[in-house]
Amino acid sequence: MEVLSENRSFGGRQLVIRHPSTSTRCDMTFALFLPEGEGPFPVIWYLSGLTCSHANVMEKGEYRRIAAELGIAVVCPDTSPRGENIAGFDPSDWQLGQGAGFYVDATEPPYADNYQMYTYVTSELSELLFANYPLDAQRQSIFGHSMGGHGALICALKNPGRYRSCSAFAPIVQPSTADWSKRALGEYLGVEPASWRAWDTLALIEDGARIDELLVDQGDADSFLNDGLRPWLLADACREAGIDLTLRMQPGYDHSYFFISTFMEDHLRWHAERLS
Amino acid sequence: MEVLSENRSFGGRQLVIRHPSTSTRCDMTFALFLPEGEGPFPVIWYLSGLTCSHANVMEKGEYRRIAAELGIAVVCPDTSPRGENIAGFDPSDWQLGQGAGFYVDATEPPYADNYQMYTYVTSELSELLFANYPLDAQRQSIFGHSMGGHGALICALKNPGRYRSCSAFAPIVQPSTADWSKRALGEYLGVEPASWRAWDTLALIEDGARIDELLVDQGDADSFLNDGLRPWLLADACREAGIDLTLRMQPGYDHSYFFISTFMEDHLRWHAERLS
Repeated sequence: MEVLSENRSFGGRQLVIRHPSTSTRCDMTFALFLPEGEGPFPVIWYLSGLTCSHANVMEKGEYRRIAAELGIAVVCPDTSPRGENIAGFDPSDWQLGQGAGFYVDATEPPYADNYQMYTYVTSELSELLFANYPLDAQRQSIFGHSMGGHGALICALKNPGRYRSCSAFAPIVQPSTADWSKRALGEYLGVEPASWRAWDTLALIEDGARIDELLVDQGDADSFLNDGLRPWLLADACREAGIDLTLRMQPGYDHSYFFISTFMEDHLRWHAERLS
Repeated sequence: MEVLSENRSFGGRQLVIRHPSTSTRCDMTFALFLPEGEGPFPVIWYLSGLTCSHANVMEKGEYRRIAAELGIAVVCPDTSPRGENIAGFDPSDWQLGQGAGFYVDATEPPYADNYQMYTYVTSELSELLFANYPLDAQRQSIFGHSMGGHGALICALKNPGRYRSCSAFAPIVQPSTADWSKRALGEYLGVEPASWRAWDTLALIEDGARIDELLVDQGDADSFLNDGLRPWLLADACREAGIDLTLRMQPGYDHSYFFISTFMEDHLRWHAERLS
């Protein structure tokens, strides 16, 4: 592990760390905020959206003030493997490949070699963090934005009991049918949609996966609302499954970090109540 | 004027606006945050540092939450004229030319044609804003970071009574002798240092300019502390001049927006008290 940068902020430490990853077979970079003190700290995972790295939320998410106050660590992984020798190296194609890992474990060439983001986030990075930093594995929560909201939801649904709470900003709730994710799932998982069900929030719920409750904020001026996001599908599924969903439609807000930063405090306090 | 983007954030509106400028003879872009409501709002000017545009503090400064709560508008100008046909178009030279206007009015070719940032900020942009937005010209304050801290200080010292208050994060307090500013002042103002005195905080104070009080935060782990910033020179000058300086050395903090965002709330509340 190599600490690329460390900056004091709100009394804590914002770290950026690079490490060789066995699951993605390349170097991976993540951001870790540690509040002041000795720990062990509860930890909240933030999974980012399409085109993002660890840096977007670190720079624009405005989480440090509240995390510092609450004494919570925040970890922000990258959204895919990266490198010139890794498949999907086309910055103009923002819905596939680098920056678009969709938090799945790919089975198809050429992606299967590196695109193991689910294993990376839930196993490898998790083990690395708890082994090296004063974090409390019994007090974890997870949230994310857009593709990362999808990631947070599937991580929580596939690992009952691991995360005390799960929330999302404008999540992709049914990636197997959304315009901006169908193509990537086909490339990563093959053309047979049955293999996609393990990576789709609505399919997971339909197939019996459960979490107790969910907090979702969604801007009603989000240009991806009708084609990519469709939170009403999640509302229907949660109603049928008995999952206590708080879905807040936020008037005038879009898909940007101007939206996320506005409601960051609400989400962190909501998680903190469940982590205490 | 062209609104390049508008994003709802913390109940208000974050605008990015481009307009043709007569003083800099090129298009200029600035950021303007308007809180919810009708106004007229008090307005705080934030001047940015070397290499920055309007966007850095807009994305990383974390000012919107507090400005929204306090009902204050925040305007963030660019740091120089810009364009391929404008002098100083060398992204590798971060201490001269584009991104490094130093808030002076240049007198020397080739910079004099466009580098009129003092007139741009204090006259042209000011008039444009008060003519077009619900802002209260009787309630203005100014602050900034590094080169922009220098900018805020000289704007306040050169315009007694215009700004109700002035503060700075890690300001360049004596640009005429600091490593990273001497060259630019020479190129913009000529080789005769006497002509630099009107653009140098310590020289202005020495020559009789006064403000009532100042708030300055400075990280003690700032790598530019000893060569570029030297806040003790400001402390000495303020003591002799009877300017009430609150200089807070912040342990462990560096020169980055991780530092600025940490103390943004303190500065905005300090200004708000003086704007009420």
